[in-house]
Amino acid sequence: MRLATHKDGSKDGQLLVVSADGERCLPAASRITNLREALEDWSASEPGLRALSERIENGEGDTLDPSALMAPLPRAWQWLDGSVFQTHADLMQIALGHEPIVHEKPLMYQGMSDRFLGPCDDVPFPSEEHGIDFEGEFAVIVDEVPMGTAASEAIELIRLIVQVNDWSLRNLAVPEMKTGFGWVQAKPACSMAPFAVTPDVLGDGWRDGRVCLDLAIDWNGVRFGNANGREMAFGFHELIAHAAATRDLAAGTVIGSGTVANADYGRVGSSCISERRAIEIIAEGQPRTNYMRFGEEVRMAATDAGGYCPFGVIEQRVIGPQG
Amino acid sequence: MRLATHKDGSKDGQLLVVSADGERCLPAASRITNLREALEDWSASEPGLRALSERIENGEGDTLDPSALMAPLPRAWQWLDGSVFQTHADLMQIALGHEPIVHEKPLMYQGMSDRFLGPCDDVPFPSEEHGIDFEGEFAVIVDEVPMGTAASEAIELIRLIVQVNDWSLRNLAVPEMKTGFGWVQAKPACSMAPFAVTPDVLGDGWRDGRVCLDLAIDWNGVRFGNANGREMAFGFHELIAHAAATRDLAAGTVIGSGTVANADYGRVGSSCISERRAIEIIAEGQPRTNYMRFGEEVRMAATDAGGYCPFGVIEQRVIGPQG
Repeated sequence: MRLATHKDGSKDGQLLVVSADGERCLPAASRITNLREALEDWSASEPGLRALSERIENGEGDTLDPSALMAPLPRAWQWLDGSVFQTHADLMQIALGHEPIVHEKPLMYQGMSDRFLGPCDDVPFPSEEHGIDFEGEFAVIVDEVPMGTAASEAIELIRLIVQVNDWSLRNLAVPEMKTGFGWVQAKPACSMAPFAVTPDVLGDGWRDGRVCLDLAIDWNGVRFGNANGREMAFGFHELIAHAAATRDLAAGTVIGSGTVANADYGRVGSSCISERRAIEIIAEGQPRTNYMRFGEEVRMAATDAGGYCPFGVIEQRVIGPQG
Repeated sequence: MRLATHKDGSKDGQLLVVSADGERCLPAASRITNLREALEDWSASEPGLRALSERIENGEGDTLDPSALMAPLPRAWQWLDGSVFQTHADLMQIALGHEPIVHEKPLMYQGMSDRFLGPCDDVPFPSEEHGIDFEGEFAVIVDEVPMGTAASEAIELIRLIVQVNDWSLRNLAVPEMKTGFGWVQAKPACSMAPFAVTPDVLGDGWRDGRVCLDLAIDWNGVRFGNANGREMAFGFHELIAHAAATRDLAAGTVIGSGTVANADYGRVGSSCISERRAIEIIAEGQPRTNYMRFGEEVRMAATDAGGYCPFGVIEQRVIGPQG
């Protein structure tokens, strides 16, 4: 089942059930009309949504307008983003010039979740000087997870999978890291690809709590990276258990993988500019690639071996603070 | 105006308007019945709440049952907690043994906001070995704050003031700080004192964006600290501007001061156990005071010079994971 959210002027939007080909949709028409509330009572809302999904596959539904979509979950109670691709961690240490991070547990920070930008929304930033960078990631949306839940149980509490662009302001990142308090200014709102999907949609692409799909990233129309999500050092079930070690997780909490990266980065490229800069530092002694400028665009699309694109496409333009 | 939230089985609870003496209340009876939604349209909701407040001061209202209260804002879209009492920062460096933090901007982290515990709720933790500590703080709840708002404008966007206990697990804190990603496991749910108040309630106690009240803290019935909120190195308006530098803040965002501490700590004591341990390290070479044990209690009450207690009293017991 694929879900999307239509811009209806409200903060949570109107929940849509979308066809497998992404062409048609039906609005959720029950008492619960947005995904945030649907997730808070998933066992009650899922059957109705599945029934709509069947009707769509039998030919019903209206034409979907991708430009009128918000993030599938436009706001969430919590966004905890991991960083569990070792290649990304190794390269970021070079790119940002910080000390090696020694930690036995998964790396994770809490970021803003009161707004996830839609897949085609312009993305405003205050200044190009902050070092505007994209980060292609995958994430899961969970049901309620009680404190102390084990990873083996957490895998069953994953309700939906999404694809995220975790926007980062690199020149603000290192000073904030050095405080030990984590990022506030360096991590503004993330974007989400149009469709949140149940794990069954991914088929073989969902293995061992990992999204084993290629994430194609184009920057201003030029292929930038195509790394696969399979190389997570910890699976999403382990990230959930880490997050829930000392807190209950509310239904609708979003847990991210961190930037997708592969050991074979020479072939597949990168999912953020900082990594490419690190690769340039290794090869040439200094970075050549600059961060994003206002007016530039990034596109993200995850596909399986057959070319199917379950989350749909992020296609966004970076703009200045006045739009 | 003083606001509280009654436990009605929902996640946001039932909003109450409370009398100045904290004895009586009336439920918000309009379309908007919880504080989260009221804050999302404050200009529309405030007049009705003010009218209820007047009726209560004219003698109407029901008896308030403090034990049936949730946090005044039981869940919020965002919790950004500063750490701007210099005395606290200096002592924590000694207590936790980390490097000095060099940062020109206010220190701030993002913590969990999908649940704030009520003032009399038992507080469950997984293990005493994690170093259970309280942190007495003040915080403000803001209206929508657009990205780039200046501190001088931010002061006008403060809607409510609250008193918070920012629970911390000290033995998990330093390893998380060393990653640079900030705290996840070390910072479980905070608690809030019963009443959220509009700034006018504090009178002279609200000056230059600071809550200039004494915060009395008792641990197992023994006075532990009574520091005053006035020594913030940055006012709340400056913390809001810092938080909004690269993001819009949603209405209902909570911004905290960090642990209240005074340079004259020898006289007024501390607002968290870690600080007392630092003072012991300075005086005796090692800490004597242990962190909290299951079954122990903490009480917090902020009062003005006349003994008025605007936020009411936090009175909580720490318990194990099974309750």
